[in-house]
Amino acid sequence: MSRPDPALLSLNTATVRAQWKLDRIIAGCERYGIRGIAPWRDQVAELGLEETRRRIRGAGLTVTGLCRGGFVTAQGRPGLAAAIEENRRAIEEAAELSAQCLVLVVGGLPDGSRDIAGARALVEEGVAAILEDARQAGLPLAIEPLHPMYAADRACINTIAQANALCERLGDGIGIAVDVYHVWWDPELERGIAATPSRRLLGFHICDWLSPTADLLTDRGMMGDGVIDIRGIRGWMQAAGYRGFHEVEIFSANNWWKRDPDEVLRTCKARHAEVC
Amino acid sequence: MSRPDPALLSLNTATVRAQWKLDRIIAGCERYGIRGIAPWRDQVAELGLEETRRRIRGAGLTVTGLCRGGFVTAQGRPGLAAAIEENRRAIEEAAELSAQCLVLVVGGLPDGSRDIAGARALVEEGVAAILEDARQAGLPLAIEPLHPMYAADRACINTIAQANALCERLGDGIGIAVDVYHVWWDPELERGIAATPSRRLLGFHICDWLSPTADLLTDRGMMGDGVIDIRGIRGWMQAAGYRGFHEVEIFSANNWWKRDPDEVLRTCKARHAEVC
Repeated sequence: MSRPDPALLSLNTATVRAQWKLDRIIAGCERYGIRGIAPWRDQVAELGLEETRRRIRGAGLTVTGLCRGGFVTAQGRPGLAAAIEENRRAIEEAAELSAQCLVLVVGGLPDGSRDIAGARALVEEGVAAILEDARQAGLPLAIEPLHPMYAADRACINTIAQANALCERLGDGIGIAVDVYHVWWDPELERGIAATPSRRLLGFHICDWLSPTADLLTDRGMMGDGVIDIRGIRGWMQAAGYRGFHEVEIFSANNWWKRDPDEVLRTCKARHAEVC
Repeated sequence: MSRPDPALLSLNTATVRAQWKLDRIIAGCERYGIRGIAPWRDQVAELGLEETRRRIRGAGLTVTGLCRGGFVTAQGRPGLAAAIEENRRAIEEAAELSAQCLVLVVGGLPDGSRDIAGARALVEEGVAAILEDARQAGLPLAIEPLHPMYAADRACINTIAQANALCERLGDGIGIAVDVYHVWWDPELERGIAATPSRRLLGFHICDWLSPTADLLTDRGMMGDGVIDIRGIRGWMQAAGYRGFHEVEIFSANNWWKRDPDEVLRTCKARHAEVC
């Protein structure tokens, strides 16, 4: 694999959200020649949807995804209608920002439940209910399979094979965001990516798995500092027809969130070129 | 599913190892009518192999497994020969204790490696190298697929399907230890268990997945305190022909390892009956 096109680097704003508000992150992307951005809904709400759109457009950035929809199962069946409404608002916002997709972290087990098969069925029902809204908005939904360590509390869709099967059943307008952090361990990863139609590959998220990992949520590594063969996985994505951005998303309470955000962005750029 | 046979409860000694040495654990099992035990090699070494065998036999316990062999990949290819030797010693000890199996935690990525496919190939090579020793000792090897969050540093075999494929290639004398903590999230779990020949189902380990989980290693829950449908999974094991013990293995630095070990054993017995 050759080096990646630097123009394909995108920044998920979680990477520097501890240091900068959204307006400064947008300006930072522009300053460092980062061409894509994936903001979070709470940051967009704080800056204002219109103002966010204006600034992102002014900086010439592509919105590679809006984070995030999903959490369909959080309150179980009684909460499904509210979750669907919330997701419809997220679809509108994502469409307003001309996002390439709305990322769905689908939700884990309802409180007190031990029925993961039931949770998965509820996810399917909830996502099916918002899919027509997404299609009408011209806004693809991107299911992000999450690492199995989040199956209970964040997402009960945990492999690409599982996400693909769900997409097959749901039809057009929905695809997959592949985050190396969540899927790198999967013995079926290469086959799973190859089996995904290219139209369904909606995102490619990068960071690294540190070994050892100190925290389940906020100890992700900068690309190159961990054990993931990011360039190899990018090769599989490209072989499957993916031509989109490479979105850096690093939750790092004790390292990158404590550093000078300019240093973080410089490092993202350098590591993207070196190891991705 | 009906309640489990209480005679099938086994105690992995890690569950109370912070409080008791092995001799007291053996006595505790006898006192509480726990009929199986799975000791760790360091504890056996401390008490002495002969003395361990004598006491376990005296207490009338079945050794449901010796913990543990494996870690084939720890030092990469240069360390393979040493890892094989260490595993041969573990096989001898397990046979000496008349253990039902030697549990293999196969190892993760060698230091500095990003080649998980290579690590998996090295595991296969290493396990193949000790399998004939195990067969001659009449001692089954039990591959324990570990949760994907341990793929980097403990075991790069992470699903039952993957373990089954490995067993197919290696032939007789090797099987799988199914630990609910590691596999509960797997969308292919029911199918994976059903597809496993009963002679290959060598162990069934129980505890619970807490939500949220505070630590990657030492925050396992007591059965019933988490999100795993343990009874349901036991039903799949039984349907696949498994008739063996149910081995409690709880690493819990901030809860069960701090409690009175008598209370821990009583709770294991009660929860086994109630939720397993």
